[in-house]
Amino acid sequence: MLWKSLYADRLDAIGHSDVAALLKLAERPDVISFAGGLPDPDTFLLDEVKAGAEEVLADAGRTALGYGPTAGITPLREWLAEHVTQMGRPATVGETLVTTGGIAALDLICKVLLNPGDVVVVGEPVYMAALHVFKSYEARFAGVPLDNDGMQPDALETVLRDLRDDGVRPKMIYTVPSFQNPAGVTIPEQRRRRLVELATEYQAPIVEDAAYRDLRFEGEALPLLAALAAEHVIHINTFSKIFNPGVRLGWVTGPADLIEALVLAKQGQDQCSSTLGQYLALAFASRGLIEKQVAAATDVYRRKRDAMLAALNQHFPSEARWTRPKGGFYTWVTLSEGVDTEALLQKAIEEESVAYVAGPAFYHDRRGQNRMRLCYSYVPESQIAPGIQRLSRIIESALADVKTVTL
Amino acid sequence: MLWKSLYADRLDAIGHSDVAALLKLAERPDVISFAGGLPDPDTFLLDEVKAGAEEVLADAGRTALGYGPTAGITPLREWLAEHVTQMGRPATVGETLVTTGGIAALDLICKVLLNPGDVVVVGEPVYMAALHVFKSYEARFAGVPLDNDGMQPDALETVLRDLRDDGVRPKMIYTVPSFQNPAGVTIPEQRRRRLVELATEYQAPIVEDAAYRDLRFEGEALPLLAALAAEHVIHINTFSKIFNPGVRLGWVTGPADLIEALVLAKQGQDQCSSTLGQYLALAFASRGLIEKQVAAATDVYRRKRDAMLAALNQHFPSEARWTRPKGGFYTWVTLSEGVDTEALLQKAIEEESVAYVAGPAFYHDRRGQNRMRLCYSYVPESQIAPGIQRLSRIIESALADVKTVTL
Repeated sequence: MLWKSLYADRLDAIGHSDVAALLKLAERPDVISFAGGLPDPDTFLLDEVKAGAEEVLADAGRTALGYGPTAGITPLREWLAEHVTQMGRPATVGETLVTTGGIAALDLICKVLLNPGDVVVVGEPVYMAALHVFKSYEARFAGVPLDNDGMQPDALETVLRDLRDDGVRPKMIYTVPSFQNPAGVTIPEQRRRRLVELATEYQAPIVEDAAYRDLRFEGEALPLLAALAAEHVIHINTFSKIFNPGVRLGWVTGPADLIEALVLAKQGQDQCSSTLGQYLALAFASRGLIEKQVAAATDVYRRKRDAMLAALNQHFPSEARWTRPKGGFYTWVTLSEGVDTEALLQKAIEEESVAYVAGPAFYHDRRGQNRMRLCYSYVPESQIAPGIQRLSRIIESALADVKTVTL
Repeated sequence: MLWKSLYADRLDAIGHSDVAALLKLAERPDVISFAGGLPDPDTFLLDEVKAGAEEVLADAGRTALGYGPTAGITPLREWLAEHVTQMGRPATVGETLVTTGGIAALDLICKVLLNPGDVVVVGEPVYMAALHVFKSYEARFAGVPLDNDGMQPDALETVLRDLRDDGVRPKMIYTVPSFQNPAGVTIPEQRRRRLVELATEYQAPIVEDAAYRDLRFEGEALPLLAALAAEHVIHINTFSKIFNPGVRLGWVTGPADLIEALVLAKQGQDQCSSTLGQYLALAFASRGLIEKQVAAATDVYRRKRDAMLAALNQHFPSEARWTRPKGGFYTWVTLSEGVDTEALLQKAIEEESVAYVAGPAFYHDRRGQNRMRLCYSYVPESQIAPGIQRLSRIIESALADVKTVTL
């Protein structure tokens, strides 16, 4: 069978996968990888998970091993409603939906909202896995550049106005407001208010991805976009950073009629998320262990962030610039024009055994050739400085090449 | 925000959900429900799951709580390759893919193969959740009627020839060859050979859903379609019946290049299936516990099948006919023309506290008004006869109404 002759058009739209390639890179044991955006496994509260598993299998037993409701088991949805309410977005159970992780949440949102050719507005650089989901629905893109304060409202307004002039209503505005993946930047409160105003004015819902929000190293917690305009914001979150990714759980908070449509779509995605995982998450969350894990994990990631910024200061060439994240997993490096981080990556792995993700993965049109994402969350703290030192050698030689060419 | 104004066309294609409605029905505690196609929780080997969880968290610990490869953890894929090989379809690791259950597998296959308007050939009556997935990709349908030996090859050939005459190549032929959901029928070996011949001749891949195959009450195991024509068959299976649904795991076996495309699609579906669940499934499977569970479960379901058939014989009117399943969860009842099982369902629940799924849910064009699916797997054995007795009273009164109208 010539399978390719049977493939749907969306396969062409997806193209290839940067995610898969980079995860393979991280596998070679001698490579210091700043590539994969993975949590540090040492931050998982393993003993508490063991106790939780024992308790769940003793108490919920066969129920935890069965199918559950498509929208999620009721006690976990009750906990989520309470949790999101405490985060400043008052929510009922009917406004929550348990999903099989954050990407599965985004997949459902696209299933409900996107026809081929529909426009998604993305702050760029943008989370590459989100880009993959949008492409798999054959979306068109309108990019809004980020600065050190995240998505720029004036640029967003221009994009929305231009689209309106063309008779186009975008189906959503996707943003990671806190400790953005990949740029590490955070949108301040005034700018948040302006963004939801624009979403309201142009009747384009915001999809707020809050995956990293709880991992805050400094400063005050900023309001959720969903707290500022509950009716216009679809809030996505994940248990991967506050519990663990192994249970594969995330959630959506949004208006009840949208949640109903998402539940319908989920019946064609996976019917329900892992019931066992949901009971484990509930046991963990209801004992206040999320707060415990977040506090400990934030300390770990803050130290790694500090190690990364110190190493960049010490080793990286003066031409390079990078963001200073106040939380989350990433810093975003901009090199001189002309440096090609994609071409450089192979050299970095082969000659210096160090890996990162090249900039073009984070742009719908694959710009960003002179940029790279560095993830400090997964690599052992002691390897951060040596890794950055290796990388700086590669970058120095690339800069020398660029200068030579320029001459 | 007027959310409905933002919805994609596929929401209209999906329409409403029979699955959701029927799962709600089963919730009222006084209702004897033959509706939901759920495994009997007593068939889960709870003690062995507990031991497995303890072992996994002790040995694989933080790895089991992390992200895993999109295609599945390698040792589980190795086990799957071996398992499927033993089932008669020689497979390498690269020909396997772990999914978040059987429906997630089908969702991925549709993501890779279906453009809106593409034709899917389905044996009808057809598994309603599969129909839901196909509709969510805006498929068009060509139905092939089943008889007591499953999908009819002559009818399939006519459908394929007519499509070819219209210049249409169907993207897949979906079938549940053993103990079909909902009809309970099984395709004999000669007919299996004829079906794969037709698939080969018309270059239309078969999607073989083997969810119930291991739950065989009598007779010999029949060859997988994938064993007869590995290059033309995408084999879907699930851990829900041989382990438990709570871990939410299934798998696909197919040609390696197709699997690669499915992996790409899965990065936009959920990135990876539950790592913890996969380690639990591996611990269970590698100790031979699947065979133990299947043997015990088959005994349970055989007894329930016997109880159901005996009760139907005793209580149902002579005008009714039903299939005699040799495995699986379901029998399929055909009543006299004119009986409307959808209208009858509300009466059955309200007046007799008994539930089933009405026939139209299992046809793409919602035919089958005088048919119903009865599931005997979930309801306690002792309630089967009383439930059928209740249902027979409702049916008798409906038959009386039909006869009156006919006069």
